[in-house]
Amino acid sequence: MDYSAMKPKEVRSLIRAGEITGPTAGMCSGYAQANLVILPKDLAYDFLLFTQRNPKSCPLLEVSDTGSRFLREIADGADIARDIPRYRIYRKGVLDGEMTDISSLWQEDFVSFLIGCSFSFESALLESNVPVRHIEEGRNVPMYKTNIPCTPAGVFRGNMVVSMRPIPHELVPRAVLITGEMPRVHGAPIHIGDPAAIGISDLFHPDFGDMVTIKDGEVPVFWPCGVTPQNVVMESKPPLAITHAPGHMLISDIRNTELKY
Amino acid sequence: MDYSAMKPKEVRSLIRAGEITGPTAGMCSGYAQANLVILPKDLAYDFLLFTQRNPKSCPLLEVSDTGSRFLREIADGADIARDIPRYRIYRKGVLDGEMTDISSLWQEDFVSFLIGCSFSFESALLESNVPVRHIEEGRNVPMYKTNIPCTPAGVFRGNMVVSMRPIPHELVPRAVLITGEMPRVHGAPIHIGDPAAIGISDLFHPDFGDMVTIKDGEVPVFWPCGVTPQNVVMESKPPLAITHAPGHMLISDIRNTELKY
Repeated sequence: MDYSAMKPKEVRSLIRAGEITGPTAGMCSGYAQANLVILPKDLAYDFLLFTQRNPKSCPLLEVSDTGSRFLREIADGADIARDIPRYRIYRKGVLDGEMTDISSLWQEDFVSFLIGCSFSFESALLESNVPVRHIEEGRNVPMYKTNIPCTPAGVFRGNMVVSMRPIPHELVPRAVLITGEMPRVHGAPIHIGDPAAIGISDLFHPDFGDMVTIKDGEVPVFWPCGVTPQNVVMESKPPLAITHAPGHMLISDIRNTELKY
Repeated sequence: MDYSAMKPKEVRSLIRAGEITGPTAGMCSGYAQANLVILPKDLAYDFLLFTQRNPKSCPLLEVSDTGSRFLREIADGADIARDIPRYRIYRKGVLDGEMTDISSLWQEDFVSFLIGCSFSFESALLESNVPVRHIEEGRNVPMYKTNIPCTPAGVFRGNMVVSMRPIPHELVPRAVLITGEMPRVHGAPIHIGDPAAIGISDLFHPDFGDMVTIKDGEVPVFWPCGVTPQNVVMESKPPLAITHAPGHMLISDIRNTELKY
């Protein structure tokens, strides 16, 4: 089955039916995918404020109505409790298990936050002949904790997590311009070059994901990463929080090119 | 006194001392000014969500911590209860009076929302030789209620209010591109041309502000307007809400040119 050519609604219905339970990378080519954080309402104000104050690492694509399982802006009719292939359940900040359907856990005070994902700008980079090394090498993108503080909001505070892509030095300006046009999926890099300047002591051992090859003449370029909000939430140890499992995203009806506007 | 050449912090301290109580148009040339809405915490989540869902009419520049009178992102050390020349006090959605200092009304549950203002993109238009008619004619910008629904959030719902500027037809693309680069101060127009298409039945009688001259060869161009959030809030009749008085804005430390990033 070629999921890359299918429409998002079709793939979401296969996910809902339990026929797709794996990662969504490459599915529904051209359409944006989104990260998920579900929190109870009593934490939702602080989290919404955190995203407002830290839009580069936490670019919000949609926030559900309290208690509603249905989205309406980025994925018409999507059921947030069933339309993601795999979820992670965290209790007091500790991973308690994975599920492919969270209907049985649903609470009337749940609020769902959908957050932009770098898959979108990576396809824009590739279309402009800027190489994306972890895709070439079939790995997960390398991610690092930094010393860049997020602006705190209520109970939520912490440092930014970044993803790194090695870019040939002559293509760095192009990479900045292309991603800078897409602020809803993290936007321009937060740092170019020396890892130590943002508190990364060992570039070759990322905190999350896999290391990739850095060739002669390439510069490490660092973008704000959607792992930041998950990390910040888990550090606050909420009684219950649910996220997508890494790589198992919500496939939206929004085309990547629409994210510029 | 030439306030246009002064630094924002200097002018804010004159406002705080009660030495400036008039409109802020033209002060601190090059620096962004902001609209203010203060609401009690129990309405703040719904309003924050409303701004997230309606970023064109409600582009947030900063949200204070609950109960804090001090800003830290757009106006370092500003006291939101004293650094605006004139405030309006609304009780149950009805104007109850104006004050130049709201210290005596301050509540520990107040949250302040600072919202971008079209003053910023008007200076960018003028710098690119796009005429701004209401400035030429010394009037307030004409504003209209439309039939464009905002996305509701909690108790807040209503239609978008727009501002109108007549633009020579050959300069309309330039006006779109210039303002489109500044999404934090309303961004690109929401409509170009026929007023009836967005529910405006009488272009010559605006709902707010003053009518301006439309010359031969000019097209009415409509932008999302910061009056939208105030209108939506007042229609929900909150027990107490405080805003700036029209034209009496917060002068921020952010340069208009910084609003592009």
